Amino acid sequence: MLTGATGFVGAPTLGALAEAGHEVHAVARRSGPELDGATWHEADLLEGADVLDEVRPEILVHVAWYAEHGRFWDSRENVRWVEASLALLRAFVAAGGRRAVMVGTCAEYEWGGEDNLNEHDSPVRPATLYGACKEALHRLAAAQARESGFELAWGRLFFMYGPDEYPARLVPSVIRALLAGERAATTTGTQVRDFMHVEDVAMALVALTQSDVTGPVNIASGSPSSVADIVEKIGALTGAAHLIDRGARPTPDGEPARIVADVKRLEREVGYRPSISLGDGLRSTVDWWRGRAPAGR
Amino acid sequence: MLTGATGFVGAPTLGALAEAGHEVHAVARRSGPELDGATWHEADLLEGADVLDEVRPEILVHVAWYAEHGRFWDSRENVRWVEASLALLRAFVAAGGRRAVMVGTCAEYEWGGEDNLNEHDSPVRPATLYGACKEALHRLAAAQARESGFELAWGRLFFMYGPDEYPARLVPSVIRALLAGERAATTTGTQVRDFMHVEDVAMALVALTQSDVTGPVNIASGSPSSVADIVEKIGALTGAAHLIDRGARPTPDGEPARIVADVKRLEREVGYRPSISLGDGLRSTVDWWRGRAPAGR
Repeated sequence: MLTGATGFVGAPTLGALAEAGHEVHAVARRSGPELDGATWHEADLLEGADVLDEVRPEILVHVAWYAEHGRFWDSRENVRWVEASLALLRAFVAAGGRRAVMVGTCAEYEWGGEDNLNEHDSPVRPATLYGACKEALHRLAAAQARESGFELAWGRLFFMYGPDEYPARLVPSVIRALLAGERAATTTGTQVRDFMHVEDVAMALVALTQSDVTGPVNIASGSPSSVADIVEKIGALTGAAHLIDRGARPTPDGEPARIVADVKRLEREVGYRPSISLGDGLRSTVDWWRGRAPAGR
Repeated sequence: MLTGATGFVGAPTLGALAEAGHEVHAVARRSGPELDGATWHEADLLEGADVLDEVRPEILVHVAWYAEHGRFWDSRENVRWVEASLALLRAFVAAGGRRAVMVGTCAEYEWGGEDNLNEHDSPVRPATLYGACKEALHRLAAAQARESGFELAWGRLFFMYGPDEYPARLVPSVIRALLAGERAATTTGTQVRDFMHVEDVAMALVALTQSDVTGPVNIASGSPSSVADIVEKIGALTGAAHLIDRGARPTPDGEPARIVADVKRLEREVGYRPSISLGDGLRSTVDWWRGRAPAGR
């Protein structure tokens, strides 16, 4: 059973799970497109976990969360999703579930250091409500798993991009401006981040699901890229680099200089390496937006 | 509204709230004794928080939790109570609640140091599932309070004793053995703890409820007592000190030497000082057990 199956991460994860031959039960408030190997279940997990009693899955992949752009960092909806996720896990245990894969975030870690963030030693000290709620849920879910005897893997997602991302976010906003022949005002872009194509995120989650690895696992590329680098690549791909106004927007106060994952666990224990380079991933993302009408921006 | 109103802490808290002139709505799975100023509501908070919609309290005092002796430290019921408490708080917000007083524990702190544990500087690093769940709930509830605009006070309870405590726990087990003329096997009892009579705990919770103090507040005496000291006092009060076999039971591995609260916040900000000395408190507890039949042990 996959929750959040119509979302930015959930939709490609659904495709990758079905592709891998699983019998997938996809949960979302409204069904997505039909897909071989997948059965849709319309349910709002904030209203209860009855859908789990019905499906009684062996494996739960819980991706659903509140993710509204610009609001999710500090919204109390995060607390509500902790509650709903605990109810979901409890129903999963009652239904005899064997393995749960849940989705955490790089925002659980303390930001501001120079080192790649790893699951063993890096301080876990979230600075945002989103990070704090994910981190609290991780600890509670791990306890639940230990006491109830199911396996728990906790995939910490870093920075993602790809088709169908919310238009106001960095990558799509720059692509859409440049494709429309409009100026794209950006920060100086010296911040270094760990970007992974969302299709790679989905495949890594499937690999994690199929493994017997438990505990936290960074789901990331391990490759540092500056924001300026990404913006320049988009400029080259769209042939509109001259429209980029780098430095026109101030870098927000307290923006950490570097957030990059150590991906040894993902590579060595889960056995997954990203297959989509940043150049290829940005190219196909630009192509995806080219295929959309520019209206509605 | 008071939850857990028939429990070891809840029952005297109900009495103290009613005594202070509040209109109290007492919640428990089964009603307790009738009391002027109190209205009983039978509800199982693990099944939902509908009772809150009905009462719509201005102030919530949430004492209910899983507390089964010998099991509560590591039971997954703790996780379930986090979920239920989040649902309760959400209903409290929806009903327009103004102030919530919730109950935490000294087990949220890291144990093993020499200093009195204080709310500002002492490391919060729970070693048990009970402590971890309380600590996670505190952080989640504080976020909820901040984002939803209600006041949250978090009373951290330390060691308690008094009438009607679960018979297998330290103080009642020694009292009952000595009153029955039986041998009481104890550890060497060098562990130093912070003991507070449960009636004092109840009055401190009422003082906290009536104050506008927010955040964590230790609810404790601030006075160190060794376990041996308490056992000896019980020996003197029962006239059966010769039945105490001190050192007959091994001290559990990893038992911290000292767990004592810094109570400056409670004294200075809440304005509460304990009124029952350890000697008086133990005397009335012994008297309470004297009034019970020794059968059923």
